[in-house]
Amino acid sequence: MESYPKYRYPDPVKIENRQWPDRVITQSPKWASVDLRDGNQALPEPMSPAHKLEYFNMLVKIGFKEIEVAFPSASADDYNFVRMLIEENLIPDDVTISVLTQARKHLIDRTAESLRGVKKALIHCYVPTSDLHGRFVFNHSRDEVKAMAIEGTRMVREAIEREGLKEVCGYEFSPEEFTDSDLDFVLDLCCAVKREWGPSTPESFILNLPATVERRPPNQYADMIELFCRNYPYLSETAISIHAHNDQGCAVAASELAVLAGATRVEGTIFGHGERTGNLDLAVLALNLESRGVPTGLSFSDMPEIVRIVERNSGIEVHPRHPYAGDLAFTAFSGSHQDAIRKGFEHRAEISDFFRQGWKIPYLHLDPADLGRQYEKLIRINSQSGKGGVVYVLEKEFGIYPPKSMHPEIGAVVQKYIDETGGEIDSKILRQILDDTFVNIEGPYRMENYQRASVGDRSGATFTWFIGGEKHELTGQGNGPLSAVVHSLKSSGLMPFFKLEDFSERSLGKDADAHAIAFVGLRCGPDGEHLVYGAGEHSNIDRAAIAALISAMNRAAAAGVFHD
Amino acid sequence: MESYPKYRYPDPVKIENRQWPDRVITQSPKWASVDLRDGNQALPEPMSPAHKLEYFNMLVKIGFKEIEVAFPSASADDYNFVRMLIEENLIPDDVTISVLTQARKHLIDRTAESLRGVKKALIHCYVPTSDLHGRFVFNHSRDEVKAMAIEGTRMVREAIEREGLKEVCGYEFSPEEFTDSDLDFVLDLCCAVKREWGPSTPESFILNLPATVERRPPNQYADMIELFCRNYPYLSETAISIHAHNDQGCAVAASELAVLAGATRVEGTIFGHGERTGNLDLAVLALNLESRGVPTGLSFSDMPEIVRIVERNSGIEVHPRHPYAGDLAFTAFSGSHQDAIRKGFEHRAEISDFFRQGWKIPYLHLDPADLGRQYEKLIRINSQSGKGGVVYVLEKEFGIYPPKSMHPEIGAVVQKYIDETGGEIDSKILRQILDDTFVNIEGPYRMENYQRASVGDRSGATFTWFIGGEKHELTGQGNGPLSAVVHSLKSSGLMPFFKLEDFSERSLGKDADAHAIAFVGLRCGPDGEHLVYGAGEHSNIDRAAIAALISAMNRAAAAGVFHD
Repeated sequence: MESYPKYRYPDPVKIENRQWPDRVITQSPKWASVDLRDGNQALPEPMSPAHKLEYFNMLVKIGFKEIEVAFPSASADDYNFVRMLIEENLIPDDVTISVLTQARKHLIDRTAESLRGVKKALIHCYVPTSDLHGRFVFNHSRDEVKAMAIEGTRMVREAIEREGLKEVCGYEFSPEEFTDSDLDFVLDLCCAVKREWGPSTPESFILNLPATVERRPPNQYADMIELFCRNYPYLSETAISIHAHNDQGCAVAASELAVLAGATRVEGTIFGHGERTGNLDLAVLALNLESRGVPTGLSFSDMPEIVRIVERNSGIEVHPRHPYAGDLAFTAFSGSHQDAIRKGFEHRAEISDFFRQGWKIPYLHLDPADLGRQYEKLIRINSQSGKGGVVYVLEKEFGIYPPKSMHPEIGAVVQKYIDETGGEIDSKILRQILDDTFVNIEGPYRMENYQRASVGDRSGATFTWFIGGEKHELTGQGNGPLSAVVHSLKSSGLMPFFKLEDFSERSLGKDADAHAIAFVGLRCGPDGEHLVYGAGEHSNIDRAAIAALISAMNRAAAAGVFHD
Repeated sequence: MESYPKYRYPDPVKIENRQWPDRVITQSPKWASVDLRDGNQALPEPMSPAHKLEYFNMLVKIGFKEIEVAFPSASADDYNFVRMLIEENLIPDDVTISVLTQARKHLIDRTAESLRGVKKALIHCYVPTSDLHGRFVFNHSRDEVKAMAIEGTRMVREAIEREGLKEVCGYEFSPEEFTDSDLDFVLDLCCAVKREWGPSTPESFILNLPATVERRPPNQYADMIELFCRNYPYLSETAISIHAHNDQGCAVAASELAVLAGATRVEGTIFGHGERTGNLDLAVLALNLESRGVPTGLSFSDMPEIVRIVERNSGIEVHPRHPYAGDLAFTAFSGSHQDAIRKGFEHRAEISDFFRQGWKIPYLHLDPADLGRQYEKLIRINSQSGKGGVVYVLEKEFGIYPPKSMHPEIGAVVQKYIDETGGEIDSKILRQILDDTFVNIEGPYRMENYQRASVGDRSGATFTWFIGGEKHELTGQGNGPLSAVVHSLKSSGLMPFFKLEDFSERSLGKDADAHAIAFVGLRCGPDGEHLVYGAGEHSNIDRAAIAALISAMNRAAAAGVFHD
């Protein structure tokens, strides 16, 4: 043993004129869920029958038409679950249930018995075909393994006939450890199984070719599937199914490439539960295809609810970075990512015209709304974010659109806050920072007794103006209320140089009592070298604007830049 | 917008005479960790400098020689972290640190400044090259984007010269959204960047070609990398690096295929942290290669510790099904899997001879011990397990080897317990079930006043035998103490037919006070049709055997099968 290398690269199969890398997937494979069997068997706490039923109903709702529900000969729970589905008429007419068994007579008989009265079913029988299993686990020659597969198939056929299920029950056969088996041997064995089964359609005869353990890179799985399809003579009567495990983290890719290579049916589980690292994640593969315009017949339009059901029944949480399903799957923390997403939404129509595609947004390859997820929650603010995300959240969560030249100042204030406190901030804190820093800021300048007047099509203003302890009665006119206040202040000679350079205003909320928020950018300093922003919020739209002006003046004064 | 399909299949690049699917990976790529930048930026709570330092030291210990440590111009924390590494001399001589910057002068200057005094570094500059970014985020033509890339490269070169870092600081350039860019355009742009940089080696000039968002299937990424390498004229002076994100769950596969296609350097993070669904998981890719006999220079020999450090610093737990690192990654719940693993270990030497490979075990493509993980913890018992796992756990955790023909009875007892209670059971409960069911079982039969005698080379036994309330003084001889008791009982005429068919015994623990556990299989019933097992545990090895016999009799009596 010591003289061998511990590990070897798996031998590639020899394939001439490989076709799959030149193909694209234009049609969805058929989907078969094994959540309730392979998935369930590998849960620290397997589901109770009540949990399995909730899960089954979820699978039906997503759109699965083939669902492996149990290993009825292995436990009383599994047997009873199948009986309950059938006896209580819980299986929709267009759904085929499947049950797994080993190739042993008493298990097969018990399995067929569990199906009495079913409308559409599959019996799924497996025989390990690798030399590792055949020789060292079962002490069988390849001939004996082949005989076992043929014998198992015959026993399933006979059991189905005995139970009167011939018209409603098809057969699925899996050469376990297909990817670790000799391809010529497993092909010969599968042909023998097919001949033993007799005439069939792709609905009633399925060859499932699993990567029981992911031992090879995904391109080698595809090569094996392509060669198998090329040399298997009964393709028109058979569904070629794949079943990938995730030991090397490539189950999704292996399945995609195997579909390119000719597989027409895919087994897996939602979010990839199953032995060890689990099975292919059907949700990810299906949504990959949807994201490329290939309709799958499956719907994940309420992903948050699917996550809740799977978590509750599996007892295992979905990882925050899980594609499509995790909390962070569409979250942009980076400021430049946040900026780009914002611009993508702004220019969505032009972008669609350019790419002739309805959805093309930076950093989001799929519309989170397709999954019932909200954009607003997807941009989050931490020390790495910068102004882009800050502004995005203000817009989306509060309908506040600060002017563009104010963004750097807002970004800097938020950055400083985060540098000091660490961690992520939520939108509420962000709003609080905005309010504390910019809105209705008090200081040396203060206004009381404001009176507005209309003078023809001009506005007049009369008010008491406080500068620290000093008190002045001012009045003036302008082409609007804010302008009238500005002219009053300028003509008073009391104030240093300032120029109202930027003004914007917007109502917040949609009812009659909505507040308004206004932003004023004030040019000030001896050479007008400073641009300082202030904001005002008030139930009266004019007062909001005036409050923004005063905030800007007080902020400039506090910063020491408000003087001639 | 309404008239376009929402999604489209990404256009494949046209490639003739594709080479990568025919290759295998024989040499490890260079590894570059971006945990402390791309990974860190996407954490809800980015790491403090103290956390970053702990993480940096872990990366060094694993064996990384290139570590991207910060985006120094983006936050004070990041800038200060780089300064701390350099000033406190925390970077090993053979480790190159890398820092990221946008292609803007003040950011580049600040970035170069952060590197003062460094021994080996890279400045990593990026420019988005997709039309989506160029046209709609930055409002730039392709020519302008190209000019920006050249200009950024020039500014980095000048900043490095200005800081006197020319001899120690190389350059990495990333055309962001490479996989969503026009390949001819990005190739032309990268050539221009290379010419602007000037003469280089693969250590000092890196082109990093990212799948910033995973928008394509992994084979298309490989096609783009192969075409790029084929048409890029400065390969001998350049490292071609890849950087895959995981939006479609294929980052590991995409990276593997891209390495086949010609990439010589791989960026990623441990366990795949990074924006959204994260980056390529470097641990998984490296361990995939190790599992195929390709040495990577990285060591994950204390995976549990690495998991603890990453979890502590990221605030995000590793998923239990995470390849190599998750709690369940090597766990077999299925009974047939457990059986096969047990047989694999039993026949390990023969298997190695057959496959000429040191490690080839069913359901475990890599030796968990390579990662500092224990086999004992990897087989777990739930309702789907059956006898294989039960026996495995008894052997591995307790050194208890029940005889083979007893396995079905043990399996059935455990199955019944789990069917009634649900959930997983741990080894302690399993041991309790064994004890309660089989060990030192009391009932109608009881022994007192046992005396052992030696009669030449034979054993004698004298004892008081209780059958319910009846009391009998018995004696007899045999070729050993157990045999003497059996003969005493048989010759008394008090007992129904029985035959001691199976006996085994073994000490538990290794010290002088070790107990022994014995198993007795008793053939009984009028036609000897029942085989009933009992076990005995005692500090005296003879008494353990006798206790096992009495347990078997009492179990047979309780089951109603102990009569003539």
